[in-house]
Amino acid sequence: MRDPDRRIRIAVDAMGGDAGPEVVVRGAIAAAGEMGDEVELLLVGDAPTIWQALSRERPPALPLYVVHAREQVEMGEKAGSVVRGKPNSSIAVCASLVQSGRAEALVSAGNTGAVVATSLLSLGRMRGIKRPAIASLVPTADGLCVVLDVGANAECKPIHLYQFAVMGRMYAKLLLNIPNPRVGLLNIGEEPSKGNALTQAAYQLLDASREDLGFIGNVEGRDIFGGKAHVVVCDGFTGNVVLKMAESIASEGSRMIRHELRRSLLAQIGAYLMRPAFRGLKKRLNYEEYGGALLLGTRGVCVIGHGRSSARAIRMAIDVAARSIRGNLEEAIWRVVECHANGAAAAES
Amino acid sequence: MRDPDRRIRIAVDAMGGDAGPEVVVRGAIAAAGEMGDEVELLLVGDAPTIWQALSRERPPALPLYVVHAREQVEMGEKAGSVVRGKPNSSIAVCASLVQSGRAEALVSAGNTGAVVATSLLSLGRMRGIKRPAIASLVPTADGLCVVLDVGANAECKPIHLYQFAVMGRMYAKLLLNIPNPRVGLLNIGEEPSKGNALTQAAYQLLDASREDLGFIGNVEGRDIFGGKAHVVVCDGFTGNVVLKMAESIASEGSRMIRHELRRSLLAQIGAYLMRPAFRGLKKRLNYEEYGGALLLGTRGVCVIGHGRSSARAIRMAIDVAARSIRGNLEEAIWRVVECHANGAAAAES
Repeated sequence: MRDPDRRIRIAVDAMGGDAGPEVVVRGAIAAAGEMGDEVELLLVGDAPTIWQALSRERPPALPLYVVHAREQVEMGEKAGSVVRGKPNSSIAVCASLVQSGRAEALVSAGNTGAVVATSLLSLGRMRGIKRPAIASLVPTADGLCVVLDVGANAECKPIHLYQFAVMGRMYAKLLLNIPNPRVGLLNIGEEPSKGNALTQAAYQLLDASREDLGFIGNVEGRDIFGGKAHVVVCDGFTGNVVLKMAESIASEGSRMIRHELRRSLLAQIGAYLMRPAFRGLKKRLNYEEYGGALLLGTRGVCVIGHGRSSARAIRMAIDVAARSIRGNLEEAIWRVVECHANGAAAAES
Repeated sequence: MRDPDRRIRIAVDAMGGDAGPEVVVRGAIAAAGEMGDEVELLLVGDAPTIWQALSRERPPALPLYVVHAREQVEMGEKAGSVVRGKPNSSIAVCASLVQSGRAEALVSAGNTGAVVATSLLSLGRMRGIKRPAIASLVPTADGLCVVLDVGANAECKPIHLYQFAVMGRMYAKLLLNIPNPRVGLLNIGEEPSKGNALTQAAYQLLDASREDLGFIGNVEGRDIFGGKAHVVVCDGFTGNVVLKMAESIASEGSRMIRHELRRSLLAQIGAYLMRPAFRGLKKRLNYEEYGGALLLGTRGVCVIGHGRSSARAIRMAIDVAARSIRGNLEEAIWRVVECHANGAAAAES
């Protein structure tokens, strides 16, 4: 159990993301300003670049520190070659700060594959967890839904989905404050026999721990936005498609609405009056508000911001990292995995 | 080549769907009324029930005929046991009408699994096609996108995705009148190396026939609504999740908007003025307008209506069947498959 009075230290990859270091630094300044003395941020990257960004923003005295990293990962680089070829990248330095205990979390909006691979290599998996997964939030009709995996594992085994359920449920409990989250298995029909070999076998595993997991059975594509489950587990391929589709709805939906508006002046006036409602809806559907995706199952917290992250998205990603640490999410998951270990081992054989 | 002057005969499963025979009959009457003498509809199911529905609707003299089937498939039944245990179901009678040449197409809004299994068994696969696929339309920001497979094959091999591309492209050409449809492979990144084993191998196959197929490479979840491709190919598991998610957007989106409206009276007035635009949007997003899914790759046309189909949806499904026959879609696919046969055989080995 971590000392709750300890200052939370978070390593922020200042070089990550398409928007450039200035945007990341601006997000970090906003986060530090809001969280006060409780949090300390280590800005990792090319020090002169970060200093320049800091000097331009002229923040008041805030708990911000610069840690130099002399290499930088580009968005298009392959994860494998980054891990082998750039041991001094800002991502690698962030991970080593967490690994050595000088930070409790890392936040990066850089190349997702490189962040995941570096974190796995440097931090390692949590004991008992076979495959760490990326958990992301999708807005539903009346709240939020934790979807995992959204991209760390393009191919999965049933036991992986089972562990995703354990981790996702704990995320919903501790970070979304849902006392007894409902967990669903993403499938293409409600009956246990539906789906592919993976979901058929995963259903059996999840069903065997139905009560412990809050498992409600299969959920379908329509149930994601419908909010039937608080946690939806799936392989990383399907989850990534679902997440990116969900992320595109705000922009494509407003394109469709604008298209319809062209026909009627009255409707255009209506749209003008509806602006506050549209703003509210856009905020609800805006993935930047949800603080990036959390890599679950590693030792140490890793938050992956969206590549196109704005300063606000970076601020929210730092917030998610701080809440994960404050909520002791890692320890909570580890405890449940220990408890479930027997069941899982039996199921696997 | 079919004689274009021949009357199009379509077998309609009157017992299929949650809404009951009255609704199917109403949809068939509307379709027959609109299409005139060109089309003849065979209403298949329990004859007394269909007669009763017809007598209630009192249609004018229309080319509608009743074909008795003494068994009925329930929505929850397993495909396998339907095929074995109910040889006289309305679905089976529809399929046998097509198989024996007394009809050119079948339309059913019944149990999808049973419709697919019965059609495969009774009609058989088109020569050269390894796996028939269900193709469905998803509305995009500026048109429609053919997505396949959306559920016939929960597990696929690369060669299946390749053939889906061939069939989907022909669908877009002949039924959507797109001269040179862009075909995308649904994946979790743009680079060829991204994805799981299936998509990595399928990319290579598709890329080898890039020009013939109009292949534009990988597309991601966000590109579906974005309209990047006219045809999106994927395994039936992913496609089913995508389709059901897309189908839920109209209802969940309007729930979200209503939620936002509660806060502001002005916005409510705006929403009132915007009604025509919302109606237009709802129509655009309404899957019932798209006439159901087409099973591609079987001998004879098979259209699968949505289980919750309204009379309008049935009408549109009959329309899709008629257009497939008129456009000679089956023959067109068969010709391309013959042409591609060498390439595909080489790729498969």
